[in-house]
Amino acid sequence: MTKRIDFQTDPSRYRHWRVAYAGGVATLFMNVDEKGGLFEGYELKLNSYDLGVDIELADAVQRMRFEHPEVKAVVLRSGKDNVFCAGANIRMLAGASHAHKVNFCKFTNETRNTFEAAGAESGQHYICAVKGACAGGGYEMALACDHIILADDGSSSVALPEVPLLAVLPGTGGLTRVTDKRKVRRDLADVFCTVEEGVKGKRAAEWRLVDEVVPRSKFDETVADRAKSIAARAPAKTGPGIALTPLARTFGDDGSVTYSTVEVSIDRKLGVAAVSISGPMEPPPADTGALHFEGAQTWMLRCARELDDAILHLRNNEFETGVIKFHSQGDPALLLAHERLLLENQENWLAKEILLYWKRVLKRIDLTSRSLVALAEPGSCFAGTLAEIMFAADRSYMAEGRFGGGNRPEAAIALTEANFGLYPMPNGLTRLQTRFLGEPGKVELAKAVLGTALGAKKAHSMGLVTFAFDDVDWDDEIRVFIEERASFSPDAMTGMEANLRFAGPETMESKIFGRLTAWQNWIFQRPNAAGEKGALKRYGSGLRGEYDMRRV
Amino acid sequence: MTKRIDFQTDPSRYRHWRVAYAGGVATLFMNVDEKGGLFEGYELKLNSYDLGVDIELADAVQRMRFEHPEVKAVVLRSGKDNVFCAGANIRMLAGASHAHKVNFCKFTNETRNTFEAAGAESGQHYICAVKGACAGGGYEMALACDHIILADDGSSSVALPEVPLLAVLPGTGGLTRVTDKRKVRRDLADVFCTVEEGVKGKRAAEWRLVDEVVPRSKFDETVADRAKSIAARAPAKTGPGIALTPLARTFGDDGSVTYSTVEVSIDRKLGVAAVSISGPMEPPPADTGALHFEGAQTWMLRCARELDDAILHLRNNEFETGVIKFHSQGDPALLLAHERLLLENQENWLAKEILLYWKRVLKRIDLTSRSLVALAEPGSCFAGTLAEIMFAADRSYMAEGRFGGGNRPEAAIALTEANFGLYPMPNGLTRLQTRFLGEPGKVELAKAVLGTALGAKKAHSMGLVTFAFDDVDWDDEIRVFIEERASFSPDAMTGMEANLRFAGPETMESKIFGRLTAWQNWIFQRPNAAGEKGALKRYGSGLRGEYDMRRV
Repeated sequence: MTKRIDFQTDPSRYRHWRVAYAGGVATLFMNVDEKGGLFEGYELKLNSYDLGVDIELADAVQRMRFEHPEVKAVVLRSGKDNVFCAGANIRMLAGASHAHKVNFCKFTNETRNTFEAAGAESGQHYICAVKGACAGGGYEMALACDHIILADDGSSSVALPEVPLLAVLPGTGGLTRVTDKRKVRRDLADVFCTVEEGVKGKRAAEWRLVDEVVPRSKFDETVADRAKSIAARAPAKTGPGIALTPLARTFGDDGSVTYSTVEVSIDRKLGVAAVSISGPMEPPPADTGALHFEGAQTWMLRCARELDDAILHLRNNEFETGVIKFHSQGDPALLLAHERLLLENQENWLAKEILLYWKRVLKRIDLTSRSLVALAEPGSCFAGTLAEIMFAADRSYMAEGRFGGGNRPEAAIALTEANFGLYPMPNGLTRLQTRFLGEPGKVELAKAVLGTALGAKKAHSMGLVTFAFDDVDWDDEIRVFIEERASFSPDAMTGMEANLRFAGPETMESKIFGRLTAWQNWIFQRPNAAGEKGALKRYGSGLRGEYDMRRV
Repeated sequence: MTKRIDFQTDPSRYRHWRVAYAGGVATLFMNVDEKGGLFEGYELKLNSYDLGVDIELADAVQRMRFEHPEVKAVVLRSGKDNVFCAGANIRMLAGASHAHKVNFCKFTNETRNTFEAAGAESGQHYICAVKGACAGGGYEMALACDHIILADDGSSSVALPEVPLLAVLPGTGGLTRVTDKRKVRRDLADVFCTVEEGVKGKRAAEWRLVDEVVPRSKFDETVADRAKSIAARAPAKTGPGIALTPLARTFGDDGSVTYSTVEVSIDRKLGVAAVSISGPMEPPPADTGALHFEGAQTWMLRCARELDDAILHLRNNEFETGVIKFHSQGDPALLLAHERLLLENQENWLAKEILLYWKRVLKRIDLTSRSLVALAEPGSCFAGTLAEIMFAADRSYMAEGRFGGGNRPEAAIALTEANFGLYPMPNGLTRLQTRFLGEPGKVELAKAVLGTALGAKKAHSMGLVTFAFDDVDWDDEIRVFIEERASFSPDAMTGMEANLRFAGPETMESKIFGRLTAWQNWIFQRPNAAGEKGALKRYGSGLRGEYDMRRV
């Protein structure tokens, strides 16, 4: 699996999904092309999916927000007759590297979280209409919807057969959503998760696994009714949408990627990627009319899309870059002017959606299993939304004073209201709340200097950056950090960062990424699943897995 | 490592710890005997520890509660001059099986939790007096104390060197307590956890890693002062303590263990252990005076100690028994009379301590990585405290009606106030609250039948048991369940159960066992740590670990 995985697509290129729009209701048909796998060696039978299928789903969900603001209910259903979705493709999983499996699960989880949040955030509610077998990742997709309707026809069922069949866990939030979202009684959940064939009919509703069970004859009618009544409840948004035009991107032979506002360069010897963000050069749109006119070209949206794509590219294509350095260059005042237009017009759906997208991009950074370091150098523009990247990083370095006689302005950071509630982490707290969990007064102190340019000394004394160095020490300190990081075990780094980043409370989301994922990763390494005689490898061979029966 | 690990000890047999009592203050001296390792192949240098050392610590902590109720402050310090504690012994870890490592960490975690809770629960506050190097598991021991005093002498330090040195995580709650208890800023925590030599002096206090830093000249005086003032604040308890006399225990050649109230039998072919509890035969002590007189022999304490020992034995010596079946036999009314004496006399320290011990034993069951099933058969006594075992189990089966003409009374369960707050799970909720997370009204319904004997039909309809079967189906259903469980991958079971058992909120404790432990287990499997060229294996060889640099 060495070809570059591309996270950009558009409906004209979909092979697995079709979207139909009718007034406030969209229907997402899953009809996976068996021959359309991202890699060789497996066929996507029975609406099973691989990362390629999920990239299209993520794209469809994202476009729904920006291109179809009029949509208020989304019906997720199968485009095939007798199967809803068989889940992640097992031959793909059996053949994939550990790193690919883990990052595949991470991306699918992020996509599920995105459409799960769409109801509360954007008034786009997902309804899952299940006819036929809905198993594993298929049921996990359903679990992330607001409402699950199951056909009562003696054969349609929901199931999480991973444990009995494959000796792995449902890895896309299934266990957590069963206990924490649907609040299925734990002993019934134990039964459900160990029954290969799943649960159907009335029992599925009694056990809280689905919201309603409907005879096949009334299925389509009921689904349409639910969609209509949900659409009627959601507030109307004034369209039209904006087109998410293709990203301007160039990939270099050296691993570099150049976007319009983001540049990625890679030092493979050191195992470091640099992600440099260029602030806006032009003034912001004058008003929301102009914002809509700029559409996907407006800096705040363009930068979010490019940064998102860059992170996904690094995560999935550059496994050996263990460190990501974030740089920025630009005029902080201009950046904040762009941000301000959005902050002041949150009743405008597009302004709001761009901020919500930044929330997702920042969470994507939080969940990136690489050592993250932000470098605030002279001329940088880590202000407001971009300052969040500094707080998402594992550590941050800030330059003190002018550097080597250059004429770039001294590094400064500035906070805005965006730093105090708009962008919660997966644990439900803002990055500053998490940072100052033991000293909440420091959040208040930071709030008191809203909009002020804070130099290195001040930012350091306020606890907003880890280190401040002048140009005598700067290069050495950064070099030592990078070399040190490169000398550590990447696994230990991943585990350490996953534990240090998310202090404080847990949410369903943080439980999925922190607890469920960790257990799944462990199991993905165990011979009972992934070994030559393991259940995952042997699936479809007619042989059962051979297990080492020692409990751990 | 095939010899039987014994969790029973007493001060006369300690090789590594010494306890000195002076009024309300106890001092726990750690002075590990290098030659006193539980297994061959390593020396416990520099106050490093293995499971044997921790078994003594757990015993000392436990005896403090029962034998020395007058103790209000416990000072934990080193009995060696220049080192506090170097943490878990690395050669032991490098040579241990995965299952031993994981269960070693689990037990040490439980012991840390026990003394961490002793302040709030029993008025026994732990103070850690750190002189010399305090690294890894040593610092994790300190983190579990209420107050950490560090000598400011240019050499004493606290450190978590696991990541840079061994490519594993601090596995005894270190990362979680750094971020969630001491609330160290996450970027400082990142620096701290990657600096092999740790942090000393004033910086350790500034970073919130310790509570105070004291010059060596004033160290002993300050420690004594703190202990005295803490002891003065805690409420006095009327002694004397009761002796925790040796357990009456017989091990059979077939793996069976016979205690006075608990019997363990093992079917190695099926991979099942049966734990059978016999309810009390005698009436309860008449009053608290009689309770003190009975001391360790009183049924409620005896059963708790025996059950605790049985669970630890199964966990650490019987890795291939993947299922634990819980049975009980006895007179529920008599059992509840014993319980009632404790419930009604919680102002009596001994009554209270016995209930607190049950809380710990039940949590130990929650955290046991085996499939747990409770079988309420005719003649069983799953009432009150013992009913909690049914709610701790992954599933429960209840017998309906009389069985095969036998004269044992029909199975019934009964709830008491013990089921509604006394025994929280690691997630902070009661087992019934967790069970009915989605239907909180059912907790109220259960409360409304306090003290009533509930037959199988009633208990099943109230959701208190998973299944109810009569004697026609009983044996078959249990057999099918056991066979099914034996056919599953033990790893998948462990991961699934760790996720399904703890719905709802998370606490520091549940984060340690659910999140930190899962990541550690993953890393313990990875070649970068545990492989032939991994850092853990190579430690002390002069060679660094060789790492696969791919991030996951």
